[in-house]
Amino acid sequence: MQRIVYLDGQYINENDAKISIFDRGFLFGDAVYEVTAVINGKLIENEGHMLRLQRSCSELQIALPVTVEEITSIQEELIKSNQLDEGGIYLQISRGSAGDRDFGYPGADVKPTLVLFTQARDLLNSPKATKGIKVITTEDIRWKRRDIKTVGLLAPCMAKQGALDKHVDDAWLVEDGYITEGSSNNAYIVTTEGVLVTRPLSNDILHGITRKALLELAEKEKIKIEERLFTAEEAYQANEAFVSSATTFVWPVIEIDGKKIGSGKPGTVAMKLREIYIELATQTAELKDGSKPFNKERLDTQRLAI
Amino acid sequence: MQRIVYLDGQYINENDAKISIFDRGFLFGDAVYEVTAVINGKLIENEGHMLRLQRSCSELQIALPVTVEEITSIQEELIKSNQLDEGGIYLQISRGSAGDRDFGYPGADVKPTLVLFTQARDLLNSPKATKGIKVITTEDIRWKRRDIKTVGLLAPCMAKQGALDKHVDDAWLVEDGYITEGSSNNAYIVTTEGVLVTRPLSNDILHGITRKALLELAEKEKIKIEERLFTAEEAYQANEAFVSSATTFVWPVIEIDGKKIGSGKPGTVAMKLREIYIELATQTAELKDGSKPFNKERLDTQRLAI
Repeated sequence: MQRIVYLDGQYINENDAKISIFDRGFLFGDAVYEVTAVINGKLIENEGHMLRLQRSCSELQIALPVTVEEITSIQEELIKSNQLDEGGIYLQISRGSAGDRDFGYPGADVKPTLVLFTQARDLLNSPKATKGIKVITTEDIRWKRRDIKTVGLLAPCMAKQGALDKHVDDAWLVEDGYITEGSSNNAYIVTTEGVLVTRPLSNDILHGITRKALLELAEKEKIKIEERLFTAEEAYQANEAFVSSATTFVWPVIEIDGKKIGSGKPGTVAMKLREIYIELATQTAELKDGSKPFNKERLDTQRLAI
Repeated sequence: MQRIVYLDGQYINENDAKISIFDRGFLFGDAVYEVTAVINGKLIENEGHMLRLQRSCSELQIALPVTVEEITSIQEELIKSNQLDEGGIYLQISRGSAGDRDFGYPGADVKPTLVLFTQARDLLNSPKATKGIKVITTEDIRWKRRDIKTVGLLAPCMAKQGALDKHVDDAWLVEDGYITEGSSNNAYIVTTEGVLVTRPLSNDILHGITRKALLELAEKEKIKIEERLFTAEEAYQANEAFVSSATTFVWPVIEIDGKKIGSGKPGTVAMKLREIYIELATQTAELKDGSKPFNKERLDTQRLAI
C-alpha cells in the first residue's frame, strides 16, 4: 500500500508527490526540515519541533506557508490516513520555485513548498537501543550554521555512508580536535566520575529537542552535567557514550573507533535516561483525551537558545 | 513559450518537469551540477565542464546515468529545441530517489536523476561586464569541500542575497581573514605592481574552468601571476579586481565594501582578459563544421587539480 503524503495543500499517493525541478530545495538545498517522533499514534514533543522550525525559517527569511496549528493538523491527518502507530513524521519547507534558477531569493509571490510524509519505524524496541551502536570519528566538514536545520545534508550523508562502509552504525564528527555531534544526533559521554558531558549549544551543533529534554531529566535525576567540549580521546576513556535524536531517543554507543567504551555494553546512565524519557513520552502518547502533560509541563521552558 | 527541458530521458515542457519528493537532491542536497555557456548556439569549454562533472560524481560515488557523449547530445538538442543563441545550459545529477529517506546511500538499483535546462542570457554585452560590479565581503560559512560542485548552495545564496539587500551585486567570501572566492565565481586582484593574484586551487574553492583558461591566457600575455592567499585589505589597495565564471567570463569589480578599487572603473587587465577569452570563445562558436579548436587546443592540458 502506498503512503499518503502531503504536498502543498494536497493529500496524495507518495508516487504522485512531485515537485518542480526549479524548486530551490532541489537546486540550492534552500530548505529546512523537522522530524517528529510518533508513539501510539501521538506526536512526541511536537511543540519543540515547531518552535525550532519557526526559528530555522526565520534565520533564512522563509515564510511559513501555513500556520503551526495547520501543520499539526496535517501531521495528525497523516498519522490517521497512514495508520501510523510508531515512527516519525518528516516535514520539509523549501523556499519554493520561481520557475528558473537564480541565487538571490525570489519575491514574496513565490510560495514556499511544504512536504510531509510518515515513516513507520520500531522506536521503542529498536535493537540498536538495547544492544548499542558502534561509531567511528570523522572530520566535520559541514557548514558553520548547523543550528539551522537545513537539508544541506550531504556531509552527514557522506559521514554516515563512510561508517556503514566500515561496518559500523554511525559517525561522530570532529572539528578542531573536538566532537561536535553524530551524523544526525547529539553526542554525549559519561566520565568515570559519572559526569554527563555534552557540547554546549552554539552554531556548531543542532539544538536538539531531545537533548534539551534529556538534560532536564538528568538534572532531576541529580546527574552532574557539564556542557563543554570533549575529544575523541576523552570519549575512548569514558564510562559510557550515547546519542540522542527525535526518533532514536537515546542509543548507547558501545564502541568508538574500534575501542570499547566502558564495559562495551550499553551504559546504565544512558539506559536510565532512555527509560525515563520514554516513560514520559509514552505517558503522553497514552492519553486519549488530547491533553499532552509531558509537553505542556515543559512548554514554558521550551525556549531554544539562539 | 515554455522551455523544453530534459529530465531522465525525456524532453518535456518546463512546467511538466517534476521530480519525486524523495529525490535525494531535494531531501539531502545530494547532487552535483555544471553550467556551460552558450554563444552563437555553441557550447563553450564543455569538455572542461564534463571533466569536472565526472570528478564531482566520482568524489561522491554517484554513477553518471548516461555517458558524457550522451550529455553533450542532450545539450545540443536543448540548444536546438529552445533556439538558444546565447546563455547557458544548467545540468544537475542527483543520487536519485530510493522512495524513502535514509542518510546512507541507496543501492546501485537506484538510478541518479539527470536534469538539464537552458537559460537565455546576454553574456557578451552584459552591462555588468562593461560597467563592473560592486561587492561586499562576508564570512565564508560553506562546507569544506568546495572543490566538489554540489547543490549545497544555501550559504552562497545567503551571501548573494545579503549583497543584494545592501544594493550591491555580489559577495566575496572571507575565511580566516582571506578571500576564498565570490558567491558563484572565482576572485582575482591585480596589484599596483601589475601582478595578477588569485587563490591557489585546494578544497577551499571551486576549480573554475574559466579560471584555468584565464590563467593560461594571462601567462601568454606575459602577465605575472601569483596563486596565493590575499586579504580584503590587500584587495582594497589593488589596482583592479575581477571575478570569473562560466557564464560571466570576466566581470570587473569596481568597489569592495564601499571602497573604490583603483580608479573605480573596470581595470585594463580584466578587460583585456575578458576580450581575449571571448575572442577565443567566439572563434569556437563561429565554426560551423563542428570542430572546436579552442577546446581541442586546450584538451591535453585540461586536467583538474585534485
